[in-house]
Amino acid sequence: MPKVTGLEGIVAAETDISLVDGIQGHLIYRGYWAKDLAVQKSYEEVAYLLWFGRLPDAAEASGFQAKLAQLRELPAHLKLIIDSLPGTIPMMSVLQTAVAALATPDFAWPPTADQAALLTAVLPTVIAYRQAKLNGTPWVGPDAELDHTSNYLYMLIGKKPEEAHAKALGAYLVLGMEHGMNASTFAARVVASTQADLASAVCGGIGAMKGPLHGGAPSEVTAMLEEIGTKDHAETWLRHVLEQGGRLMGFGHRIYKTRDPRAEALQAVALQLNGQDHWLDLALHVEETAVRLLEEYKPGRRLYANVEFYAAAVMRAIDLPAELFTPTFTVGRIVGWTAHVLEQADVNRIFRPQSVYTGDMPAQ
Amino acid sequence: MPKVTGLEGIVAAETDISLVDGIQGHLIYRGYWAKDLAVQKSYEEVAYLLWFGRLPDAAEASGFQAKLAQLRELPAHLKLIIDSLPGTIPMMSVLQTAVAALATPDFAWPPTADQAALLTAVLPTVIAYRQAKLNGTPWVGPDAELDHTSNYLYMLIGKKPEEAHAKALGAYLVLGMEHGMNASTFAARVVASTQADLASAVCGGIGAMKGPLHGGAPSEVTAMLEEIGTKDHAETWLRHVLEQGGRLMGFGHRIYKTRDPRAEALQAVALQLNGQDHWLDLALHVEETAVRLLEEYKPGRRLYANVEFYAAAVMRAIDLPAELFTPTFTVGRIVGWTAHVLEQADVNRIFRPQSVYTGDMPAQ
Repeated sequence: MPKVTGLEGIVAAETDISLVDGIQGHLIYRGYWAKDLAVQKSYEEVAYLLWFGRLPDAAEASGFQAKLAQLRELPAHLKLIIDSLPGTIPMMSVLQTAVAALATPDFAWPPTADQAALLTAVLPTVIAYRQAKLNGTPWVGPDAELDHTSNYLYMLIGKKPEEAHAKALGAYLVLGMEHGMNASTFAARVVASTQADLASAVCGGIGAMKGPLHGGAPSEVTAMLEEIGTKDHAETWLRHVLEQGGRLMGFGHRIYKTRDPRAEALQAVALQLNGQDHWLDLALHVEETAVRLLEEYKPGRRLYANVEFYAAAVMRAIDLPAELFTPTFTVGRIVGWTAHVLEQADVNRIFRPQSVYTGDMPAQ
Repeated sequence: MPKVTGLEGIVAAETDISLVDGIQGHLIYRGYWAKDLAVQKSYEEVAYLLWFGRLPDAAEASGFQAKLAQLRELPAHLKLIIDSLPGTIPMMSVLQTAVAALATPDFAWPPTADQAALLTAVLPTVIAYRQAKLNGTPWVGPDAELDHTSNYLYMLIGKKPEEAHAKALGAYLVLGMEHGMNASTFAARVVASTQADLASAVCGGIGAMKGPLHGGAPSEVTAMLEEIGTKDHAETWLRHVLEQGGRLMGFGHRIYKTRDPRAEALQAVALQLNGQDHWLDLALHVEETAVRLLEEYKPGRRLYANVEFYAAAVMRAIDLPAELFTPTFTVGRIVGWTAHVLEQADVNRIFRPQSVYTGDMPAQ
C-alpha cells in the first residue's frame, strides 16, 4: 500500500511570521511573545502586526479598528446564499461557501492586506448570521462601535457582552491566529502558490481546519468542566478518573514538551479576571489540582494544561455551543492564513512536490 | 526575505494512481497508457479505473454510466445559490461555492467513491447552468441518455453535440484527469489529510486550479489558431513569428522533454476525425509545419506540441468560450483529485511540514 510522508521534518518555507518552539515552550509572532500580545493587545492590533510586520501606534490602531468595523456587513447576495443553504450544512462549509461567494474580481492576484481585512472582518458576521437563522433568534447585525471581538460576541448573544468574556475570548483569538506551518496554513499557501486569489486560499485553509485532526474542538474538556461543576468536586472527580487509569483531557501536547505558552497566556487572563467568571475560576482550580494529581499518579511525565484546556474554559464561559468551537478558532486563524498568503506572494514559488509511482506498469 | 522551497524534488506521497515520466514521455494511469485510454475509453470507464483501480467490464461500465447520469441534477438549493451569485464571480469560484454548498453530513469522513461520483457528476451541470443563466440562453438540463462528455456539451450548446466534438472533448477530459502530485492534487491531499471531508478537499483543489500558474488556459493558442485561420496561411504566419524571434505558443513543456503523451493522444484523435472538423484539421497541419520550422530556426531544441496546443484545438472545435477553459479542465481533473483523496484516506498521515523562522526574536 502506498505511503504518505506527511512531510514531517521537511522545510516547506521560511517565514517572518511566527516561531513555534515546542522544546522551549516558545510561540513568537513577528518578534513578540504571543502570550504577551494575547494579554496586552487587541485582535486588531495583532492582526495589524501579522499583516504589516509591526505593531500599530495608537492612531493607526484606532483607524485600523474603524476600517475593519466598516467591512463587517454582509452583502445582500451573501445573506441570500446563506439562507439558501440546507440546515444540515456544517458551519465550516457555510464559511467556505461564503468566502468563495465573495471572490469577485476585486480578489484578483496578488493578495492584498485590504482583501485580508475584508475576509477577516466578515467571517464573524457570517457565523453569527447563520447561527441566528438556524436558531430562529433575532439578528442584531454588527455594531461598528464595538471592537472585533466584542462585536462577534455581541452578534452571537444579541446583547453587549461582559467585559471579562470579551477579554478572555480576545486572548483566545489572538493565541489562535498563528502557529507556523500547520496543515491549514500550509494548504492556504499551496493554493496561493498557483497565483490563485486570496479567497481561494482561505477556502483551502477552512477546508483543512474542518478536519478533526486539525480543527478538533475542545468539547471533551468542556464536558469535563461541566461534569466537575464546582471547585469542591474537582479533586474527587479527577482522582476518580486517574484511579481508573483514565486520561485527563486538555493535558499534554504533541509539540509543547513544556508548558504550552498559549495555556500560560490564557491562565494569566483567567487570573486577571479572578472572581468575574465561574468557569474561568473553575478552570484555574482544576488545572492546579490536576497538575498536582498527575505528578502524584504519573510522576515525571510533566503533563501540563494545553491550549485546549483553557480554550474550553473560555468557550464555556461565553456559553458558546460546541458546533461553533472550530468556526471560532477560524475567526482567529484566518489572520495567520492571510498573513502567510501575503508572504507567499512576495516570494512565490509553486508547490509541486514529487510522488513515487507504486502501481503497475503497462503490459507493453 | 524568506524563501519558499516549492518542495521541488521532495516526495510527498507514494501513489498507485499515476506515473508522469517527462524524460521518457510516459503518462500512466494505474498500469495503462493514458494516451491509449484517451483514444479507446470513455470518461466514465477511466473514472472507474482511477477510483476503483481496474477497468470495468461491459456490464459494470454501463451500470456506472447510468449511475453517474442519475447524479447530475442540481438540488434546488444549489440553483438558488448559483442564481444569487453576482455575475462578476468567476466560474471557478462558482464551482467552489457549489461544492462547499453540497457538503451535507453525507460527506463526512471517510471519503467514498459514491461521494466522488456525486461531485464529479454534478460539476458539469453547475458550469452549464451558470453559463446559461449568465448568457440568458435556455437551460436544457442534463440528459440521462447521454454519456458524461456528450451530456456536458449538450448542456452547454443546448443540442445534441456532433460525434467528432464529443470524441475530441472526451479524449481531452481523460487526459486532464490525472497528472501526479501537481499543485491542485497536492492541495486536495493536504486538506483531506486532516480528515476533512471530500467536498472540502475538492474545494482546495479548485482553488489551486484557479491560479494561472496551474490552471492557466490555452487561450493564447486558440488566438494563434484563429489568426492563422486556414492551412494555406500557416507557414507564412509561423515563419513571420519565428523571423521576429517570437515564441510559438503551445510548443515545449516544463516536464516533458520528448513528445507530450497527451498531445500525442489528442493528435491521434484528430487524425481519426480527419475531415470532420476544421479546427482539428488545422491544428494537425499547424503542428506539422511548426515542428518543421522550429527545427529550421531553433535546431536541436526538440520542441514539440504540448497538451495545451491540442487542448486549444479541441476548445476551438467545440467553440468553448475562454472563461470555460479552466472549468472544463476541472471537469476532467476532479476525477484525479477524488482518486487521490480516496488513496490519502487509506494511508492517511496529516501533512505538517516545518517552517524556518527568519523574523526577529523578542527583546527579552
